[in-house]
Amino acid sequence: MTTGKQMILGMHLGNGYGSQSSAWRAPGVDPANYTSFDAQVRYAQAAERGKFAFLFLPDFLGEQADLTRESLMITLEPMMTLAAIARETKRIGLVATGSTTFNEPFNIARQFKALDVMSHGRAGWNAVTTSDPVAAANYGRAIAPRPERYQRAHETIQIAQALWGSWGRDAWVKDTKTGYFADPAKIQPVNLQGEYVASRGPLSIPPSEQGQPVIFSAGGGGNGAELAGRYASGVIGAVFTIEDSRNQREALREAARRAGRDPDEVKFFAGVMPAIGATKREALDRRVALGELATPARVPYLGAMLNLPATLNVSQLDEPLTPAQLAVASPSPFDPRSVRALEVAREGWTIRDILAHGVIDYHPTPVGTASVTADHMQEWFEAGACDGFWVSIDINEDGIDTFVEEVVPLLQERGLYHEDYEGTTLRDHLGAPAQYGLDPRIAAPAE
Amino acid sequence: MTTGKQMILGMHLGNGYGSQSSAWRAPGVDPANYTSFDAQVRYAQAAERGKFAFLFLPDFLGEQADLTRESLMITLEPMMTLAAIARETKRIGLVATGSTTFNEPFNIARQFKALDVMSHGRAGWNAVTTSDPVAAANYGRAIAPRPERYQRAHETIQIAQALWGSWGRDAWVKDTKTGYFADPAKIQPVNLQGEYVASRGPLSIPPSEQGQPVIFSAGGGGNGAELAGRYASGVIGAVFTIEDSRNQREALREAARRAGRDPDEVKFFAGVMPAIGATKREALDRRVALGELATPARVPYLGAMLNLPATLNVSQLDEPLTPAQLAVASPSPFDPRSVRALEVAREGWTIRDILAHGVIDYHPTPVGTASVTADHMQEWFEAGACDGFWVSIDINEDGIDTFVEEVVPLLQERGLYHEDYEGTTLRDHLGAPAQYGLDPRIAAPAE
Repeated sequence: MTTGKQMILGMHLGNGYGSQSSAWRAPGVDPANYTSFDAQVRYAQAAERGKFAFLFLPDFLGEQADLTRESLMITLEPMMTLAAIARETKRIGLVATGSTTFNEPFNIARQFKALDVMSHGRAGWNAVTTSDPVAAANYGRAIAPRPERYQRAHETIQIAQALWGSWGRDAWVKDTKTGYFADPAKIQPVNLQGEYVASRGPLSIPPSEQGQPVIFSAGGGGNGAELAGRYASGVIGAVFTIEDSRNQREALREAARRAGRDPDEVKFFAGVMPAIGATKREALDRRVALGELATPARVPYLGAMLNLPATLNVSQLDEPLTPAQLAVASPSPFDPRSVRALEVAREGWTIRDILAHGVIDYHPTPVGTASVTADHMQEWFEAGACDGFWVSIDINEDGIDTFVEEVVPLLQERGLYHEDYEGTTLRDHLGAPAQYGLDPRIAAPAE
Repeated sequence: MTTGKQMILGMHLGNGYGSQSSAWRAPGVDPANYTSFDAQVRYAQAAERGKFAFLFLPDFLGEQADLTRESLMITLEPMMTLAAIARETKRIGLVATGSTTFNEPFNIARQFKALDVMSHGRAGWNAVTTSDPVAAANYGRAIAPRPERYQRAHETIQIAQALWGSWGRDAWVKDTKTGYFADPAKIQPVNLQGEYVASRGPLSIPPSEQGQPVIFSAGGGGNGAELAGRYASGVIGAVFTIEDSRNQREALREAARRAGRDPDEVKFFAGVMPAIGATKREALDRRVALGELATPARVPYLGAMLNLPATLNVSQLDEPLTPAQLAVASPSPFDPRSVRALEVAREGWTIRDILAHGVIDYHPTPVGTASVTADHMQEWFEAGACDGFWVSIDINEDGIDTFVEEVVPLLQERGLYHEDYEGTTLRDHLGAPAQYGLDPRIAAPAE
């Protein structure tokens, strides 16, 4: 049991519709929102009303999807989207994914620092090593082996942080009386030469209200934890169970300790994709309506998850599993969501409703009233599974407001969530220490 | 004499202060404007009140300047600046410089197309081949030989335009009734493999109101004209005399013809840096005040321009040239501004005032009342020297308003400038034809 600690929330912003791929055609949603920056700003403002610490914009450099019936899942371009949002929000942090593989360190450092200044200290960079060959093809390349990608990631982050520190805290004199604009002695080049990337610097952008942007990380595995442990203040998790989440958080905290940092400086965020309705039936019906086109195609996969590939088929969509099926069903060891899928099946729901429980979604899906979602979050948080959540809403147009108006007050009543922003910068929201340039505790060069 | 034709204007946006490097300390200017996006938006809105066709943001990837007493001359980052402006203006075009050497084609294509969608069809990319070793060092590289840089520029622009055409005009079905989001048959990959860059595509951004961004160009010389003639709708000129401007414009038009295009599709913009006051003395005094710190350092260079290196020195700053100096002075053939400098010197101005005439500035400086600037522009325009101007204001805070309130009405009265925007997109403003993907008239691959 943690006492007195409060969870930190981030809001997932994707394509302008929501995190269900058919949200674009839900009632009340403008199907043109994929290109609407007005819509993104509206969602950001709604999350800010809920005192969210940050927005999180995933990114793929070449999303592969069958667009016949489903939308893409990302914004047109995350930095331009966040620039628009920066001007029309006041407090919420702005975190975007940016590839360390397919960006020049100088370019990505410059854009995130400009966003940081524009937002008065609210920018964060989710630094990822892209491993998707579809993305690589958009740059005329193949994906490099993992060690090379992670080496480049270390170099890119270190160069970016060094560039962010180019202008010392008080380098920018701007004294109209004496005529001194800046103190060149306090503007330092970087002169970093890595194996894959390099930069001389300086970057000519003064410190923001939080000094410089915050690093986020999203990669799993040993390399990912090592990267996050050294540089990240926030980690975007992908976890399905409390146990897995707690293990990942512990590995991350251990990596931070190894890097000489206080593990509390690195916050781990579990994903959650709530299905909220006035009743459990209404919550399910919202998902059933959204899944109208996609649901039948998912039945064979559900069959595989339950080790029933031969008998589970779409003709049974509006029926529960038969006693014979339930008798032999077992959770597939190849998908961590299978345990939950079997639990739901055993409750007697139809196959359509089992799928509406989000058992094949990207994150755990509490289904029911707002208090079910609040309970889920409380349970994970108090079990030490995470420091907070990144919340992914099925249909942004009304779903963010529902979360803010119904779930947030419950968390506040329970003492689990702040009543208002305590500070103005993303570092304030995360409890991340001020930083100028590379963290001096990270002494070792990228090995 | 052109009849009935009207000039097109662009407004130079740089560092938040103005185009004189000491504008940061002028009265009424907030010296913190280097980091103020509010200020940039305010200037953009002022230019829009003047019905300017576009804003032009130069860029350098590592500006070298002695910042002790002078500010940098560029925005923190042009794309983020234009994203902010896009949301808070309605009609004005948004043109930023982007390097073909230090950007991946997929990244730059994606950001400009996102800006184009965000601004409802107002984006333009000034595609330049960076030749500055200081910039190259920020990417850990050396500057490649010119042929390689131009080859990469051709490839990068072609890939960008092809990516911009990835989604056909009616690929995005978004029909909520039938559930069809897009027609994959109308979303095409690019599959361009150049010598230096490549991309598979597609880029998942639907057409904007103008189809896709407009290409601008700023490079001079044969390679620059060739690049501009093939792809550009606007060219940012750097010219000091009508004759030079007319020659460059003709070379550009000839290059467009060689590329199979109508030369009227490529507009050439001459620079102008007006010094405006209620009287000529007041106009000069504004510049004298701005040059307080910089002026003495410029005297030796003025001496070199007038072939008087031995006798012209700073002790004479507040005196005119002596008759003996004037008798032997001659314009240096190494600086095209020397002829004008000598003309001004012969009018009997002090050296301080000669410099206040802008004789060493980056563009011609008409000095005096608004009508002097209007006369200058009319003369150049009617001589066929240009299709319009990019206007560079000494102090943006009040100078853009002065231009809009005093010069623009004169140009309108003379029938030389439009009373209002005729269309909504940058292509409308430039008279550039609609375009989706690579211009089919540009059949030949980059050679």
